[in-house]
Amino acid sequence: MGADRKQDIIRRLRSVEGHVRGVERMVEEDVYCVEVVNQILAVQRALKKVSALVLDRHLHSCVTHAIRASDEAARERVLGELLEIFEATGRG
Amino acid sequence: MGADRKQDIIRRLRSVEGHVRGVERMVEEDVYCVEVVNQILAVQRALKKVSALVLDRHLHSCVTHAIRASDEAARERVLGELLEIFEATGRG
Amino acid sequence: MGADRKQDIIRRLRSVEGHVRGVERMVEEDVYCVEVVNQILAVQRALKKVSALVLDRHLHSCVTHAIRASDEAARERVLGELLEIFEATGRG
Amino acid sequence: MGADRKQDIIRRLRSVEGHVRGVERMVEEDVYCVEVVNQILAVQRALKKVSALVLDRHLHSCVTHAIRASDEAARERVLGELLEIFEATGRG
Repeated sequence: MGADRKQDIIRRLRSVEGHVRGVERMVEEDVYCVEVVNQILAVQRALKKVSALVLDRHLHSCVTHAIRASDEAARERVLGELLEIFEATGRG
Repeated sequence: MGADRKQDIIRRLRSVEGHVRGVERMVEEDVYCVEVVNQILAVQRALKKVSALVLDRHLHSCVTHAIRASDEAARERVLGELLEIFEATGRG
Repeated sequence: MGADRKQDIIRRLRSVEGHVRGVERMVEEDVYCVEVVNQILAVQRALKKVSALVLDRHLHSCVTHAIRASDEAARERVLGELLEIFEATGRG
Repeated sequence: MGADRKQDIIRRLRSVEGHVRGVERMVEEDVYCVEVVNQILAVQRALKKVSALVLDRHLHSCVTHAIRASDEAARERVLGELLEIFEATGRG
């Protein structure tokens, strides 16, 4: 993965970490439940954006290489993994 | 919210925080992208479970009180909030 | 459920039915896969809107009545059902 | 797409169509709202399975061809489409 993309992903994950700590404080201070749930939904959307960035690099590197390598087993593996990610998405 | 439920929620959020830090390390160490995405999906599922616990208390306390208070404006507000949460769920 | 709301829901479900038939034709005519998947995603969004309309009436009728009836078993049942719907949402 | 796969997909879409008609009848006959919502959730899961089958063929045909063709514009287009599908998934 390119160094810039990697730094962007790590920066976003640190921001998610801070966001989760903020939700902990909200719960400790008995903030209204609906606001807590809305913040958790916002964290989940931020995580989905991180997944999309990781997946974008994966498609351009590993998936492209595996398909070009003309190694059927490698192609089946990467395509099967993509399909499993698609099936698991939205279940969070 | 009961003290036990509150502690359970905070404990789960701390675990999510640690999980996110683990994902950061995976990215720094160039772990295979598919494993990174799968860990992010696991974090999203853990957050959904936390939302369900918060929502459960909300239904038993605020929603129940607002509906029993026979204050139509309060009832409309809590029901509208529940519907917005339902509509936003799964978009993460 | 009010007659207008009921007619609106039935009308939307008929439109979903027609939309699904359209997707069948797309598959029969070998339309580009990405367009097929995008139309299925559009059908799922239309169904989520129908669910929100049904849930809205449910909150204003059954849930309100069960909570006001001061029957703890009835309240537990409707709140448990709401929570199960929340947990299943987004898994489609 | 192979003829068997195509027939399987069309058969599943017809079953979804029948399922939606069943939900219409439930609404007309004032079946309990929670059962209606649960049937809509089941239809959404069935549609997600159809999407997965379409996507699986797409990955093995169009995506594989576009990546092997060494045409950068074609590769960018198919990878961009996959990412958009991933981002839209779960919003239904």
